[in-house]
Amino acid sequence: MTAAPAALLPSLLAGRAGGFRPSPVRDFWEVSMEPDVISLAGGNPDLSVLPLDALADVAARAVARDGLDVLQYGSGTGTAGTREAVARTMAAEGIHVDPAHVQVTAGSQMALDLVVKLLCDPGDVVLAEGPTYVGALGLFAGMQVDVVHVPMDADGIVPTGLEETLVRVRAEGRRVKALYTIPNFNNPSGVTLAAERRPEVVRICRAAGIAVIEDNPYGLLSFDGSSTPSLHALDPDNVIYLGSFSKVVAPGLRVGWAVAPEAVRRPLQLASEATTICPSVLSQALVEQYVLHHDWPSVLDRARKLYATRAAAVLGALAHSAPDGVTWSVPRGGFFTWVSLPEGIDVHRVLDAAIERRVVFVPGSAFHADGGGTRQLRLAYSLEQEDVLADGVRRIMGAIEDIAATS
Amino acid sequence: MTAAPAALLPSLLAGRAGGFRPSPVRDFWEVSMEPDVISLAGGNPDLSVLPLDALADVAARAVARDGLDVLQYGSGTGTAGTREAVARTMAAEGIHVDPAHVQVTAGSQMALDLVVKLLCDPGDVVLAEGPTYVGALGLFAGMQVDVVHVPMDADGIVPTGLEETLVRVRAEGRRVKALYTIPNFNNPSGVTLAAERRPEVVRICRAAGIAVIEDNPYGLLSFDGSSTPSLHALDPDNVIYLGSFSKVVAPGLRVGWAVAPEAVRRPLQLASEATTICPSVLSQALVEQYVLHHDWPSVLDRARKLYATRAAAVLGALAHSAPDGVTWSVPRGGFFTWVSLPEGIDVHRVLDAAIERRVVFVPGSAFHADGGGTRQLRLAYSLEQEDVLADGVRRIMGAIEDIAATS
Repeated sequence: MTAAPAALLPSLLAGRAGGFRPSPVRDFWEVSMEPDVISLAGGNPDLSVLPLDALADVAARAVARDGLDVLQYGSGTGTAGTREAVARTMAAEGIHVDPAHVQVTAGSQMALDLVVKLLCDPGDVVLAEGPTYVGALGLFAGMQVDVVHVPMDADGIVPTGLEETLVRVRAEGRRVKALYTIPNFNNPSGVTLAAERRPEVVRICRAAGIAVIEDNPYGLLSFDGSSTPSLHALDPDNVIYLGSFSKVVAPGLRVGWAVAPEAVRRPLQLASEATTICPSVLSQALVEQYVLHHDWPSVLDRARKLYATRAAAVLGALAHSAPDGVTWSVPRGGFFTWVSLPEGIDVHRVLDAAIERRVVFVPGSAFHADGGGTRQLRLAYSLEQEDVLADGVRRIMGAIEDIAATS
Repeated sequence: MTAAPAALLPSLLAGRAGGFRPSPVRDFWEVSMEPDVISLAGGNPDLSVLPLDALADVAARAVARDGLDVLQYGSGTGTAGTREAVARTMAAEGIHVDPAHVQVTAGSQMALDLVVKLLCDPGDVVLAEGPTYVGALGLFAGMQVDVVHVPMDADGIVPTGLEETLVRVRAEGRRVKALYTIPNFNNPSGVTLAAERRPEVVRICRAAGIAVIEDNPYGLLSFDGSSTPSLHALDPDNVIYLGSFSKVVAPGLRVGWAVAPEAVRRPLQLASEATTICPSVLSQALVEQYVLHHDWPSVLDRARKLYATRAAAVLGALAHSAPDGVTWSVPRGGFFTWVSLPEGIDVHRVLDAAIERRVVFVPGSAFHADGGGTRQLRLAYSLEQEDVLADGVRRIMGAIEDIAATS
């Protein structure tokens, strides 16, 4: 070969290539896997509630009886049964959609990838809560979309802050395409957008001429079984809804979906086919059978109670052991609480000290596109037992206390 | 709401949105599903060779015994077992890779999506065989990549034609990023790039400073079990290899992979995580168990013989019934033969006449980005029985004959 081996490919990379960055969890991933380390970092669902034997039967029957279908290429929009299961799942949260309007995807992350492909040219701006989902930030960065955060408080996005942000960003000559929001039990903040703010948020976006991307993986996981009306229902023509079976069935199947307004439904399907032809048909068969024909609501109920108890353990431990100046959000569902540190304490120092005490969490900076979050951290309570969670919280609070004492 | 419902979203679409276009198969999809219609259109593998009961057992055991793993989020690069299965699969074709260099994806279509994300800015050019895979053309168009076809003959890409195309495109001031090629049993042409041309093709690309994307879903499906040395082996630092279990195991699982040179391995992984977090872990478990622990080679052998017999049926029927001036490629593996019509006969007229005779195929224009292929068509022999295939070919040839007689 004539040229230097390593020199060529890097010179060919596209503008996007540098934007796909490692997850901030990766830095301490290996530490978090050590057996004596307590992890409040990952946001994995607890699958111990699943009826594995029943699911194994479903999988075996799907392959043995319908193998020529579930192992073959499937519909680009998803199977009819899966779309029906999606409609059923959304109805459990009080959201009513026509199964024909559902686009099944290989996880809701891929649904977001498709929406970004359809809506965002390089340099376009998407507004998002600050903090917001780290995986969305990674995708936006890779796809050369600039994220600008919108102020939020304990009731979610502040409508006047949304309006002010829009005005400011546009005054800079930038083109805003959408508001990306996780309105229920936000990852990472645990905060829910108050019902009374929702019509206002949707109205502001429409009036400003931007779309809403409503990402709702946790909506069914309220601790008390209640739900808040979706943004999608408030303006179905301007809200692209993203849903996921990852938190309420199983993430390893990689089945998510989008419900898009008519204007983008067909391009969304075409983009999905161009990206992955169809989602795993076997995975879809499992979701369909499980959601439509098993006692899924009672499993979900057990999961809700499990997460509620764990959240209570974390909040209780925080109340008992948090040093002065530490505050936290009080989630009513989902997997996370968001902790703020006292003035002058950097979260990365706390993380180092926490790792010494054999406990990990994700620093708040991971959830900001603008360098924010250095005085915050996310605690995930979805996967550990209560006593372990409480122990983890106490260790972190101890680390903060030590740092505060020497600052 | 203040604005007109439908007016907003279309005004927000990105440059990509118009590029994702319907598959040309869609136009006559419904016709092709009617029971009396013979389809030589779709390129689905025949799954009747699969040991469904054994696969059902594998699926059941994966869920019942390892459910907490296979239903949970998995590694962003793919599971260790699947990467091992990929290495084993490639070794069966004489290609040796380190499992650590394998990026598992949700089908090889998604692997191509990731490579395009990493390599291609809007307006960049990718060279490709004319004709080439319709799904790649759809993705390139959606991602605003311009495709320029390279001349090919019965031995695949013509090296001097590749060089001339590069010079011409660059003289137009356009930036060429890669050659995309399906070197074995090309979809749609059935043509294989001759072994003696391969070093030359790889050398030309490197000398010209462009990468090679080697898409090889059919390489293991030679009729006689032989294989041709891969482009990847000839220049592992400049060839990005895409592989798929869709044609040799099952497409409904959606498991494919990329083997990328070191320079893009990490960005590829990050782009994959940003696009879909991880491929279906359940699907990966099936692939892993099946490839590593079942008598997969003998199933593959049966598939090879099945496709060889069907190809022979189609080629025999062509030899017996093709009117003067009709020519076709003679595949030595894969799913397709490529038929050229006599001068002056447009393939879309033939398709209309064929549908009247209750037989469908994909017109050659689907496989060209430049309006070419109007005098060609693709015949797929992967899914129908021999007598049905022969009947289908005779009907198409009859249609051509009628059109030729009245032209």
